[in-house]
Amino acid sequence: MTRYGTLYGIGVGPGDPDLITLKAVKTLQKVDVVLAAASTRNEASLALSIAQLHLRQGAEVVRLDFPMTRDETVLAKAWRANADTVEGILAAGKSAAFLTLGDPLTYSTFGYLLRTLNGLLAEIPVEVIPGITSYQAAAAHTGRVLVESGESLAVVSGVAGEEELTRVLSSAQCAVILKAYKNMPVIRRVLERLGLADSSVFVTRLGLEDEEVITSLDNVPEKPSYFSLILVRRGA
Amino acid sequence: MTRYGTLYGIGVGPGDPDLITLKAVKTLQKVDVVLAAASTRNEASLALSIAQLHLRQGAEVVRLDFPMTRDETVLAKAWRANADTVEGILAAGKSAAFLTLGDPLTYSTFGYLLRTLNGLLAEIPVEVIPGITSYQAAAAHTGRVLVESGESLAVVSGVAGEEELTRVLSSAQCAVILKAYKNMPVIRRVLERLGLADSSVFVTRLGLEDEEVITSLDNVPEKPSYFSLILVRRGA
Repeated sequence: MTRYGTLYGIGVGPGDPDLITLKAVKTLQKVDVVLAAASTRNEASLALSIAQLHLRQGAEVVRLDFPMTRDETVLAKAWRANADTVEGILAAGKSAAFLTLGDPLTYSTFGYLLRTLNGLLAEIPVEVIPGITSYQAAAAHTGRVLVESGESLAVVSGVAGEEELTRVLSSAQCAVILKAYKNMPVIRRVLERLGLADSSVFVTRLGLEDEEVITSLDNVPEKPSYFSLILVRRGA
Repeated sequence: MTRYGTLYGIGVGPGDPDLITLKAVKTLQKVDVVLAAASTRNEASLALSIAQLHLRQGAEVVRLDFPMTRDETVLAKAWRANADTVEGILAAGKSAAFLTLGDPLTYSTFGYLLRTLNGLLAEIPVEVIPGITSYQAAAAHTGRVLVESGESLAVVSGVAGEEELTRVLSSAQCAVILKAYKNMPVIRRVLERLGLADSSVFVTRLGLEDEEVITSLDNVPEKPSYFSLILVRRGA
């Protein structure tokens, strides 16, 4: 019977190399293989550059490639191929760490990998190591409370579409809009209509050299960087 | 003019001493004073025991006490007194770290401290260091995706009351109910009514010796531990 190596899902945090956990560091120091996958090349390289500070000598780096498409068939095929690669590594008894910027269970592709693997086999030992999310880092950087006492917090993706954004944001005292990069005109319109524009702050490329905090949504470019989010708190 | 020391808001993570960030560790290693405050004694001691692994010799520990009451006047007075204590430390040029289990800007008392201090003075340098939240740790422990692709995530406090719980949970595909400790009958009723009971998992005292994961809400005690939460994902 095959004795599989452990698959680790590691959150390396939001970008600042010091915002990784001790547990992630200790795990990176011992794994045999690092799996770097992402929907964009930038994200993969950033996660990998953080991990590389901690890898032991001789650790292998394997890139999992995903085509930039929304075609479900093409994507499923890529997932299948990548899952096969991962399975081969683990079946050889090697441990492997799948890297995620932020947290492996918060808008990450790690869930897809798990599901694709689970379809094949249930015997792979899996351990998930959480990471600081981009929105926690943005809140910390701007000194804004995310949520407190009796309030609730809604976390939503900016690519969700106008209807979904309106639905989620209209009922939340506190909210985070992630991936606020290609839908800005719609996001701005929804926030203005709900009277939330003045209590919103736009944060982009946090922890990178050209990070920026924009407190008036009017000053946000129509097509910001991929690493952009908006913090909302009613009355903030 | 007074030259204030820096006030750090440090998230020490959910309880596992290895789920603290490198940045928090490096900061704890250099601060002059550690401020341990919490609404419950348990929470304060747990945060402090994690921090104490990293403090330099000679670092002072100052406990900020808060009365266990919902009386706003009594609480405001306690905040005032605690803010005075903190201000005295910072005004003496010492740096201080206010500890929070989890994240300092997610259901933490750090926001209150900031507001009470800001009322007095704007010149205090403040730095916030985010921490892994209890719900990220619970998701990692159970291997459950918190939220992905076009979904949204609602984070709500279990003490919020039936109406608020119903409102928030009825529109979310994914949700986290924190502080699921004294309101369990109401929480269970709301989840059942919304058809979410079967896709919920109850996690208590995670990272502590008596941690427990309960997949059927029927088996959750009426009055669980303070450190309890529920992960919800429609169709999970």
